[in-house]
Amino acid sequence: MRTAREVTLPLHVDRAAAEPLPAQLVAQLRGLLASGVLRPGDDLPSTRALAAHLGVARGTVVTAYEQLLAEGWFSGAAGRSTTVNPRLHEVHPRLPVAGEAADPRAARAATAAPAPTTSAAGRPRPPLDLRPGQPTQTGVVGPAWRSAWRRAADAPVEVPLPPLGWPPLRAAIADHLRRMRAVVRDPAEIVVTAGVREGLALLLMATGARTVGVEEPGYPSLRRVLTAFGARPVPLPADAQGLVTASLPAAAPQAVIVTPSHQYPLGGSLPVDRRLQLLDWAAAHGTLVVEDDYDSELRYTSAPLPALTSLDHRGGVALLGTFAKTLTPAVAVGFVVVPPALLGAVEAVRGGLGQPVSLVTQRALAHYLDSGALMRHTQRMRHLYRRRRAQVVRALRAVPGARVYPMDGGLHAVVEHERDEPEVLAALAARGVLVAALSDYWAGGGSRRGLVFGFGGVSDADLAAALTAIAAVLAEGA
Amino acid sequence: MRTAREVTLPLHVDRAAAEPLPAQLVAQLRGLLASGVLRPGDDLPSTRALAAHLGVARGTVVTAYEQLLAEGWFSGAAGRSTTVNPRLHEVHPRLPVAGEAADPRAARAATAAPAPTTSAAGRPRPPLDLRPGQPTQTGVVGPAWRSAWRRAADAPVEVPLPPLGWPPLRAAIADHLRRMRAVVRDPAEIVVTAGVREGLALLLMATGARTVGVEEPGYPSLRRVLTAFGARPVPLPADAQGLVTASLPAAAPQAVIVTPSHQYPLGGSLPVDRRLQLLDWAAAHGTLVVEDDYDSELRYTSAPLPALTSLDHRGGVALLGTFAKTLTPAVAVGFVVVPPALLGAVEAVRGGLGQPVSLVTQRALAHYLDSGALMRHTQRMRHLYRRRRAQVVRALRAVPGARVYPMDGGLHAVVEHERDEPEVLAALAARGVLVAALSDYWAGGGSRRGLVFGFGGVSDADLAAALTAIAAVLAEGA
Repeated sequence: MRTAREVTLPLHVDRAAAEPLPAQLVAQLRGLLASGVLRPGDDLPSTRALAAHLGVARGTVVTAYEQLLAEGWFSGAAGRSTTVNPRLHEVHPRLPVAGEAADPRAARAATAAPAPTTSAAGRPRPPLDLRPGQPTQTGVVGPAWRSAWRRAADAPVEVPLPPLGWPPLRAAIADHLRRMRAVVRDPAEIVVTAGVREGLALLLMATGARTVGVEEPGYPSLRRVLTAFGARPVPLPADAQGLVTASLPAAAPQAVIVTPSHQYPLGGSLPVDRRLQLLDWAAAHGTLVVEDDYDSELRYTSAPLPALTSLDHRGGVALLGTFAKTLTPAVAVGFVVVPPALLGAVEAVRGGLGQPVSLVTQRALAHYLDSGALMRHTQRMRHLYRRRRAQVVRALRAVPGARVYPMDGGLHAVVEHERDEPEVLAALAARGVLVAALSDYWAGGGSRRGLVFGFGGVSDADLAAALTAIAAVLAEGA
Repeated sequence: MRTAREVTLPLHVDRAAAEPLPAQLVAQLRGLLASGVLRPGDDLPSTRALAAHLGVARGTVVTAYEQLLAEGWFSGAAGRSTTVNPRLHEVHPRLPVAGEAADPRAARAATAAPAPTTSAAGRPRPPLDLRPGQPTQTGVVGPAWRSAWRRAADAPVEVPLPPLGWPPLRAAIADHLRRMRAVVRDPAEIVVTAGVREGLALLLMATGARTVGVEEPGYPSLRRVLTAFGARPVPLPADAQGLVTASLPAAAPQAVIVTPSHQYPLGGSLPVDRRLQLLDWAAAHGTLVVEDDYDSELRYTSAPLPALTSLDHRGGVALLGTFAKTLTPAVAVGFVVVPPALLGAVEAVRGGLGQPVSLVTQRALAHYLDSGALMRHTQRMRHLYRRRRAQVVRALRAVPGARVYPMDGGLHAVVEHERDEPEVLAALAARGVLVAALSDYWAGGGSRRGLVFGFGGVSDADLAAALTAIAAVLAEGA
């Protein structure tokens, strides 16, 4: 009875060949060393196991190993297993160092850090990255988080995961939506996704939509998803309150993506009359309304308006949600609330492509939601964001020529100005502050000039330093 | 200074309306109860917090709450917070029970279990599901697994996750490939995916391939991915050794998916001369070869042949890997080894759509791989599968008219027979055994008849019972 233990090396012997078997083995092992398959310090199979694996006499393997030991390729001592010589590159310096980057430590060290800049005091420090999108994640890793993952990792894995998601997580999301957004839906209509973009991709595949209306200005990364899935974005004008529903086109696209809770990036909330006008227009044209509800739970200046999906009684609205902003992008989970008529098509696509979120992650998030930890975390975040919004307004309201948008709840601020955009961005980068340009949110022309920055992903002190730099740069040109 | 704590209800007051403010609140709260937004047992905001939130006198909220308490909608006592009456449905029995299914426990109970069948002894028992694809997962949840997730959940989350994957996991996968498959590649060429199908989708989007060769017979679920991404599957004949490279078409598709380590489902391994012929043909036509290496680490009958990607010196092979078979589908992680020339396109697609696997999962898997736990688990699995393969051969070799395929390592067996396929499947289902039909693996005509069953996802005793049933059903018709 042979044992295959540890013999994963691609070795074989050819009894018909003229070359003796030990020499064949030596040549093949040298080849594995040269190609980097065997690396310094690797354990080798025992001579007994390798002989059994190859079906040769143990003496054949012993002879081969002894030659490689003598030549310094291998090292070993009585009672210890044979290994590849840890100092191989001193003994055979011309051996190509193949696969060096496969050392996990090397790769860790090579992980790119942001390029350091030099502060006024001359000390190099990393830039303050205020490009929007990063939420505050302070306090995420705590007892409730650890306990949720521990319970998830303790549970058995021999459990089928339905393509639409783990039912207890879908029930927990339904409960979350009810409590936080007053949206009452059956868990069967909630689909677990790997995030907002993945949820949009799922809807595009399920509907086959080829023309999709988008707010202009709007969120560039959702537009990229459209293009990747062969859909054409149709820009629809938006103002500070959101989509301008009075000018919706008669030739309606097959779907339309809107941010009614908090227009991205301008920050306003779509008034109820516009919401109803949008729903009527969509129903008249058979257009699917995709409600991107990316951060409405974080609204801190007033109660959010009801979700569009709550106003819809015709089953024409899909709601895209995510835990990336309210909790952390590290969880990589979002959801779609799917209109009942579309559920079959979504399930067919999901079944064909598979559920991308691991069972362990879905279980951990379900525990975290059920424990009430997300609600407590969201409440802490709302306090923090409200305080930071006040800090932004205080720092920038007196800057001449700059107009701070209302920021009606959210993680980022928009400051319109009259200056040259690339010049402002370059001046800020020179001071070590990275922000986004307002004009980047327009796909076509007609843009306004300004800057967009997040105030979630930085510390209080870094935000204060960045605001000082922004005020100084904007004041310079005035 | 108002506090927004716990006020997530969509309530508002209209000072211009004729209706008194407390009456407005009562009407809105009754509406939330009727629509299921508020449910029995829910905590209500304190009168102080709600008054501050709405900007009204506290007495207004107190009046509204007192009316709803008196009417039995709310309950409360001195020193305790007010809640929705837990026995609401006894007091107001005609209230619609909206959102009942949002109770996590209800959804858990509703999780579909397989329909029970009745055994010969008359006791109902669940069917033995031997449809292929489920690996043995015994022993996955152990100290190394728990420790890996615990460490991952303890680590900070404020870390950017590159679109191609967490660098330490990519390094750990490179090391795993080197040790288990003798594939030496730079971690920078390894992309973390949510599984084999997601990896294939990524390659299709990065290459824009519209015609893709597939083995006939072959793995149906990869074909479905092709169709979902607008690519046309081009069936290429395969025999028990794999792709018949002598008859590759002159009009080459833009990509071709092959299972050289272990043809799916027939089980053979592609001989080296065919491998080289395939690579030459692909290079001549600019066809990308996609090597589906789904379970080669589990090969237990002999050492696996080198991966096709190791034979390729022209950068024309992408390798699709997964941890679903070697570890568990519950981790939902796979990888693609991308040819260097394709890396930029893959990174652009990944950047646009986002990395679907959570940072926590990637960290946990990196810890698990680095600890050597996967290698130990795989060794245990190889022993178990070898034993089970012998059990299958023993049980079925004497059945007249049945031919058991060599099963050259793998998690499933193929038994060809001369009987009517639906009849055999129905007879097995009647005995409580679910298997797949061999003909389902052909997209076009020319199929062979037989059955395909997994021997990974069941216990020893269940496998023995299923084999007895299979042998009996096949013998009946002989």
